[in-house]
Amino acid sequence: MITLNADMGESFGIHSFGHDDELVKLIDIANIACGFHAGDPGSMRRTIALCAQAGVAVGAHPGLPDLVGFGRREMRLEPDEVTDLVRYQVGALMSFIQDAGLALNHIKPHGALYGMTARDASLMRGVCNVAQQFEVPVLGLPGTQHEKVAAEYGLRFVAEFYVDLEYADDGSLLIERRPHTTPPDVAAQRARRILARNEVVTRSGRALTTRADTICVHADASNAVEVALAVRDVLSEAHQTS
Amino acid sequence: MITLNADMGESFGIHSFGHDDELVKLIDIANIACGFHAGDPGSMRRTIALCAQAGVAVGAHPGLPDLVGFGRREMRLEPDEVTDLVRYQVGALMSFIQDAGLALNHIKPHGALYGMTARDASLMRGVCNVAQQFEVPVLGLPGTQHEKVAAEYGLRFVAEFYVDLEYADDGSLLIERRPHTTPPDVAAQRARRILARNEVVTRSGRALTTRADTICVHADASNAVEVALAVRDVLSEAHQTS
Amino acid sequence: MITLNADMGESFGIHSFGHDDELVKLIDIANIACGFHAGDPGSMRRTIALCAQAGVAVGAHPGLPDLVGFGRREMRLEPDEVTDLVRYQVGALMSFIQDAGLALNHIKPHGALYGMTARDASLMRGVCNVAQQFEVPVLGLPGTQHEKVAAEYGLRFVAEFYVDLEYADDGSLLIERRPHTTPPDVAAQRARRILARNEVVTRSGRALTTRADTICVHADASNAVEVALAVRDVLSEAHQTS
Amino acid sequence: MITLNADMGESFGIHSFGHDDELVKLIDIANIACGFHAGDPGSMRRTIALCAQAGVAVGAHPGLPDLVGFGRREMRLEPDEVTDLVRYQVGALMSFIQDAGLALNHIKPHGALYGMTARDASLMRGVCNVAQQFEVPVLGLPGTQHEKVAAEYGLRFVAEFYVDLEYADDGSLLIERRPHTTPPDVAAQRARRILARNEVVTRSGRALTTRADTICVHADASNAVEVALAVRDVLSEAHQTS
Repeated sequence: MITLNADMGESFGIHSFGHDDELVKLIDIANIACGFHAGDPGSMRRTIALCAQAGVAVGAHPGLPDLVGFGRREMRLEPDEVTDLVRYQVGALMSFIQDAGLALNHIKPHGALYGMTARDASLMRGVCNVAQQFEVPVLGLPGTQHEKVAAEYGLRFVAEFYVDLEYADDGSLLIERRPHTTPPDVAAQRARRILARNEVVTRSGRALTTRADTICVHADASNAVEVALAVRDVLSEAHQTS
Repeated sequence: MITLNADMGESFGIHSFGHDDELVKLIDIANIACGFHAGDPGSMRRTIALCAQAGVAVGAHPGLPDLVGFGRREMRLEPDEVTDLVRYQVGALMSFIQDAGLALNHIKPHGALYGMTARDASLMRGVCNVAQQFEVPVLGLPGTQHEKVAAEYGLRFVAEFYVDLEYADDGSLLIERRPHTTPPDVAAQRARRILARNEVVTRSGRALTTRADTICVHADASNAVEVALAVRDVLSEAHQTS
Repeated sequence: MITLNADMGESFGIHSFGHDDELVKLIDIANIACGFHAGDPGSMRRTIALCAQAGVAVGAHPGLPDLVGFGRREMRLEPDEVTDLVRYQVGALMSFIQDAGLALNHIKPHGALYGMTARDASLMRGVCNVAQQFEVPVLGLPGTQHEKVAAEYGLRFVAEFYVDLEYADDGSLLIERRPHTTPPDVAAQRARRILARNEVVTRSGRALTTRADTICVHADASNAVEVALAVRDVLSEAHQTS
Repeated sequence: MITLNADMGESFGIHSFGHDDELVKLIDIANIACGFHAGDPGSMRRTIALCAQAGVAVGAHPGLPDLVGFGRREMRLEPDEVTDLVRYQVGALMSFIQDAGLALNHIKPHGALYGMTARDASLMRGVCNVAQQFEVPVLGLPGTQHEKVAAEYGLRFVAEFYVDLEYADDGSLLIERRPHTTPPDVAAQRARRILARNEVVTRSGRALTTRADTICVHADASNAVEVALAVRDVLSEAHQTS
């Protein structure tokens, strides 16, 4: 069964962010910010409580140490630095997860770290070192170093598909720093195509084969809830007919 | 047996700090900075490795979120905020400790948080919430809320004695923001007095009854190694004659 | 003529905040965050441009170095530290103001720093040192150290009145960490009373004499725009009838 | 006359750094950290006072917002972001410089920002926008975008030569993240060669033509003072014989 995931807990102090209260009712798994690109100890506690109440599985969403840039500005890091900062953030989140009586569901690198680790196996090993320690799967982009290095570590890999980001012809994502909106019907259409044919149309118009174990909806779009609803409907239909 | 403890891992990026390489050979237990007042993911990994090699037990030393002030400027925090920031930091450190195959030995609040929790039971509960979660003792100042709240939680309490800080007549510590030096013979004399008579002479010259399960040596004094050596000698003598 | 002021530029990276686009049309002077409690270099540039376009005067709003706490958690600072952090922040803002061809209008300490400097003359001197350097007035609470120390420095003092915060009987403000809403008609009523009688009703119900050179509207309330509109109306009426 | 410059003020809170007290006696111009990669408001004030007393000219040394990485990890920034963060940092420093009754001598980008701006004209414009605003020269690497963009802006360009870093064959510097030591006699030899022949030997052994208006000595090497002394001697000799 294909799940729906979204980033959550990306508020910071009294700076609220996203649409956690509504999204939590629509998704299956949450990627929770751990304080480096967004989130703070209080938001982590509250987000986990929110997920616990809604029965949403909680994953770690470690990011680059860059609050102003929201972890979306690439930084030239050494592999050890990636391991260390992922280990730090996942451990911090784990502390709240354990206190809530839950289990860590997965690790998914955030933002620029997602792109960096998709391209560079030595950096992706930083993520996998920690996934191995906590014995959890990694979420990532199929066909990239995300999948290859997860296999190298013998880790379960959960292939993500994005309904609200554009794909390049090589299968990489065109990550943007600022939120943008995707019409819900476009998102639904993309969801149907990946479900039916394991295919996405790239920015240049080519059909690209990929796959989805989980579909990601970006929480920072102004219409994130509408997009999530549209995709949830597609997944429900698919589930009923299968 | 009375142990010797010191703060470690208080470097930050390429800003080194203290005398970890030498102190690690002299102490029994280390209080490791967790990134809020000092320390970073890389320093935490390296400090734990240093302790592991030397057979020194590793504890968490969570502090206030204030790098410039080194966690030595009091902040008015709500009890929940203390719980959250201690939980975050201890979890982050725990992640490195587990990876190194070690166990967490204790939690000791750092700097201004040490003073705040010694005075305010509602804040000390923040520390004890996390000590309870990780099933470890807390290090603190006997006769203060450190000890009282630990008892309330049924946690083991390890009473600290300071050879290089002055005591007020009420048993509280006169914590200073800048490092200062204590002559090693003065430190040794204070160590001998607490061992022999459970007594310290306060700043005003009064004899105050207290006790020591562990003696703390500050790592940021320029002569920290000499002070640690002097106290180590006192402890060794006491151990042999007992 | 009594002016209307509001805090602006309190977004942080992609975390938006407040209602700057609407408030800028209603206020006379803006207090711009300088990066320590909120704001970042980009937000400072954009906020100044917004004010320039609307003809709103730009002031500096330096705060405590505490993003997670939004500068609303008191920190025990030494007077030199206050001078230094105010000097740093005002200089940083000044750089953008000069580039925009504008002049700095005033300095107003933010959040907990506002309360700390209202009570403690030695800390308020930190603010006045910098106001003197830049030859600008300070905004503050009449009858407190804000006014007394400004007089000591020979600085112009602009007395603030708050329509959306409660006053204690001693004239101090009951600053809250989380935004709350004040009904616009209550705000208008308070504005009318201060204009007509230089009086405010304290939380305990007593009438307290104070005065207003400028009225502050908090930008972080969900109904900030409605409150500002209501007060703007009161000020316009008063201006026409005077 | 060729000057000697060094980075200063790179301490952070109680984390001291470098050898400012000794270097200040040997150099002509200082590049002062502005709080993003190192330095804090207090260190900026103290460093400027130190330079004022020694008659050393004070320049701004703005860096990337990365304390843990000491500004030595490249970040993918947009040109506007470079302008903004340089403008913020230079303004903050300027505030202290004016208070000390001094004038800003120059701007020199720090660490990874130095390398990024040497290669990318659009980023170097961020530095030059601010140099133009403050009407000061920029220090940089001759033959790179540092020099070209400064010329484009009509700014005075001060060509730097490094005695303690290696050059690639294309004239770019091989910047390292961790401090290393250069034997003082090697540094002196390199200084003599650039003075006599405008030449440096690259890592691969080729002679490369470059030039020096100023020679930089890195403050974070353990033998920085010895290196500075050796270069100072070479400069003094050259000055006497010329």
